[in-house]
Amino acid sequence: MATLICPEHPSPVADAEALRKACQGWGTDEKAIISILGRRNAIQRKLIRQAYEDMYQEDLVKRLESELSGDFEKAVYRWTLDPHDRDAVLLNVAINQLPIPDYRVIIEISCIRSHEELLAIKCAYQIRYKHSVEEDLAQHTTGDIRQLLVGLVSVYRYDGKEINARLASFEAEILHRVISEKVYNHEENIRIITTRSKAQVLATLNQFKDDYDTKITKYLKDDSSHEYLSALLTAIRCICDHHKYYEKVVRCALNKPGTDENSLTRVIITSAEKDLKEIKELFQKRNSMPLEHAVGKETSGDYKAFLLTLLGKED
Amino acid sequence: MATLICPEHPSPVADAEALRKACQGWGTDEKAIISILGRRNAIQRKLIRQAYEDMYQEDLVKRLESELSGDFEKAVYRWTLDPHDRDAVLLNVAINQLPIPDYRVIIEISCIRSHEELLAIKCAYQIRYKHSVEEDLAQHTTGDIRQLLVGLVSVYRYDGKEINARLASFEAEILHRVISEKVYNHEENIRIITTRSKAQVLATLNQFKDDYDTKITKYLKDDSSHEYLSALLTAIRCICDHHKYYEKVVRCALNKPGTDENSLTRVIITSAEKDLKEIKELFQKRNSMPLEHAVGKETSGDYKAFLLTLLGKED
Repeated sequence: MATLICPEHPSPVADAEALRKACQGWGTDEKAIISILGRRNAIQRKLIRQAYEDMYQEDLVKRLESELSGDFEKAVYRWTLDPHDRDAVLLNVAINQLPIPDYRVIIEISCIRSHEELLAIKCAYQIRYKHSVEEDLAQHTTGDIRQLLVGLVSVYRYDGKEINARLASFEAEILHRVISEKVYNHEENIRIITTRSKAQVLATLNQFKDDYDTKITKYLKDDSSHEYLSALLTAIRCICDHHKYYEKVVRCALNKPGTDENSLTRVIITSAEKDLKEIKELFQKRNSMPLEHAVGKETSGDYKAFLLTLLGKED
Repeated sequence: MATLICPEHPSPVADAEALRKACQGWGTDEKAIISILGRRNAIQRKLIRQAYEDMYQEDLVKRLESELSGDFEKAVYRWTLDPHDRDAVLLNVAINQLPIPDYRVIIEISCIRSHEELLAIKCAYQIRYKHSVEEDLAQHTTGDIRQLLVGLVSVYRYDGKEINARLASFEAEILHRVISEKVYNHEENIRIITTRSKAQVLATLNQFKDDYDTKITKYLKDDSSHEYLSALLTAIRCICDHHKYYEKVVRCALNKPGTDENSLTRVIITSAEKDLKEIKELFQKRNSMPLEHAVGKETSGDYKAFLLTLLGKED
């Protein structure tokens, strides 16, 4: 469930006017920006962007980008975009990251979004960059990591809930064999993780645990300094339980010396109007502390105020 | 352009009644079936199927399957299906073919159909078989051929017409290097053919021809007994000029001792309401003989009458 709190029928015209006012004159009224945009869902934000464009012949997103700065600007910019467009931007930034692409973001988007969402994201990517995600991703990777990531991004997985228990058992055995031999990048490994339906992957991994008394992730963790292996592990986590995965991303981001604002922003922005409540609950359970407290402790200023608003803090 | 000739507003109810009559009593009236279904486009056939189901609580496609036989039955069955559903059936049959999948069909469908068509086909496949095309295909293949085919089927290519000439030149060089070293299955080879937009692949192959004075297909032909290489060649042909490719498939099908009815049917059925006219023109040019004559010579009976009707023969 969402943590975002928003009024039922705000006026896009009044919101656009208020945002214009917040951006004009000396200094910017960040509080006004937070109290409007931090309390509007995707459809409401879209209507505001349209009204703003119609009234002032100016792109609201670009205006905000030029008025704000730092982590706060990045968060507001990404939040204000249409969700599919935002994911397209996240993918593009991740693919072009130096020295190597940020695999986590690519895997999150391809494994956690539904097929329909992923398709809309790939479409938004093509409109924005005049390339396909697949070709950019393939160009910036090589070898087994390319195979894994391009497979995850491109395959149209079956979405049904039914599973084939015999197949699960058979493929659990394949996984166990290749992983025991430490051939983690075996093509069968990649095939099973990238092409089977999520329900079937889950059934296979459960069977693995039943048959070999250990979670597959335990086997893979030993070598997780290895880039491909770490990507495989991330894919498995995203497919199996993405709330748990996101909780860990947030926890590590907050615990990192200096805080990893990029990851923190990403999880909050992309989950606030979907399932941030579940992630918050898991965080509380795992860290014996509400997520809001941890975020409040590790961030500051407008950035902190904006994240707390998205986390559902009342005025 | 299509070769199919059909009336503008036929009555689906009258057509369903006539088909029912053709299937009832002693013997089947194949002529009636040909004169109705062989002159109806996809939407008209869909309306007939619906009217037939409503009126007789029976599936027309199944009824025709049980009334007819041989190549004629196969052709009528495939023709009567919705085009996306038909391609899904063709894919499934091709993937499950023994001893090895029929790569040509898989490549044709993934390289010749538009992205929107391919998506609808993959969707129809999932509804019919409760699996994704990708997982079935990956399960029935291995190694480089798996990488090539799953790539072709799954990647959402950019559809824009703009090309990057510098990139074309750079990637033509990569292709030339790996092909000169006879590393045909090099991952860069697969990357370029499966992920670049069709316009970009074409630009790269043209650059290849300009820079090295030989078409890439000439290099690959030397070893085309090799299964992977022959698949790569087919993909290149389908992307570069699918009319020419289809002309060749039809020519080989007709010239084969005993005739390859499967391929002949496939090309005619899938092109009759799209671009069979272009294929006919190429056939005439290449063989100094109208396609109808060649088909008339090599086939017989109701099957022949049906194909000729789809080829645009007037009554």
